Amino acid sequence: MTTDGAEFEEYADLGATTENAMEIAETSMDRVRELVPDETLADRIRQKSVHATGDPEFQHLVRFTGETDDEPVVAGARAVMDERPIVTDITMVKSGITGRGHDCPVRKAIGNGADLAAETGMTRTAASVLELDREGVYDDAIAVVGNAPTAALALADCIEDGTRPAVVVATPVGFVKAAESRNRLREVAADHGVPAITNVGRRGGSGLAAGLTNELVHVASDARDGTVELPE
Amino acid sequence: MTTDGAEFEEYADLGATTENAMEIAETSMDRVRELVPDETLADRIRQKSVHATGDPEFQHLVRFTGETDDEPVVAGARAVMDERPIVTDITMVKSGITGRGHDCPVRKAIGNGADLAAETGMTRTAASVLELDREGVYDDAIAVVGNAPTAALALADCIEDGTRPAVVVATPVGFVKAAESRNRLREVAADHGVPAITNVGRRGGSGLAAGLTNELVHVASDARDGTVELPE
Repeated sequence: MTTDGAEFEEYADLGATTENAMEIAETSMDRVRELVPDETLADRIRQKSVHATGDPEFQHLVRFTGETDDEPVVAGARAVMDERPIVTDITMVKSGITGRGHDCPVRKAIGNGADLAAETGMTRTAASVLELDREGVYDDAIAVVGNAPTAALALADCIEDGTRPAVVVATPVGFVKAAESRNRLREVAADHGVPAITNVGRRGGSGLAAGLTNELVHVASDARDGTVELPE
Repeated sequence: MTTDGAEFEEYADLGATTENAMEIAETSMDRVRELVPDETLADRIRQKSVHATGDPEFQHLVRFTGETDDEPVVAGARAVMDERPIVTDITMVKSGITGRGHDCPVRKAIGNGADLAAETGMTRTAASVLELDREGVYDDAIAVVGNAPTAALALADCIEDGTRPAVVVATPVGFVKAAESRNRLREVAADHGVPAITNVGRRGGSGLAAGLTNELVHVASDARDGTVELPE
């Protein structure tokens, strides 16, 4: 564990450590499984999107970039099993990443690149992504953007310039550039063979990004104990 | 400042520190103001709910417990001006609270009450709320629940037993007990004269709870500089 499980575990299903909480978490996912197909690995991400948003309709807003819908889920689970870093845009998303079921280092971009932001006038989140990219942090990483459209746009630029995350999870929320930033991420991810999990529309946010990333951790746990088999 | 502004500021509007980000934040709230009334203090919370969720419909899901819809907003802003503690359920919500524009200590419940959880089988989040309540932390505090229905239910029990937060902000999300926990909070809050901001339905979450709390901070800032006048 590289994150503080005692702090973070409350967020994820896996973190429901007392009987009462386990019961709520299981009943909750049971309800979700009545509302969302439960056949493919991509369905697990669709289920988690419904679980995280409390909205059955959200399953139709999730997008998978890859040869198949399952591909980004498999890529993400393998990256978790390979203990690749999980890199979030902001603190809030990092706080939502479960501390259990993985040994990936979890870090955030924000806090880096302050000089770059000051020099250029770009957002601190965008500058933080570009700064970490300079350090090679995003190659083979699980790159997660939950909040900042400018971070998603910066990550798209990095991919265009040669960076290759193992998987991208991007769900920035809002009325300005959020949907557009995810559109651009999908385009560059498709063009350059980077598996990605995103959504369409204005909705999204930190809780969703953390939830979907945690589901990659759960799939990895299931692959590790033989409950699911990941395709080659 | 009692929280690390450098870490947390990216979440709130107030945190948009570079030109580019300020522009996005302002344009975004301008769009929201085209979609949501902009007349009362309660409208500012409705606007923020739309901003945080990316969904114009969310304005109709917010509920205000008090003599008027504005009352909990005024109570919250006054509590911010009085530097009362902001107490969140989980780390993720705490991470979303802006570090700017207030001098309130910000703390989280989770991490407290582990013994109580182990003894009773209640959730760690519920036990953490009861433990902090024993210590008197919630009286006159800004009590925020973004994630855990059981924390909201525990807070309702505390209010029934005599605890008096300055204001409650509660938006737990999900399919099991989330809506029910908010119903119960509204009932006990109304019965005992505790101002509360909640929502109906299954949606909600940490980002929303943090956003609404940050809007109380913004209202307090505007009251401080005379942009808005708070009623007696």
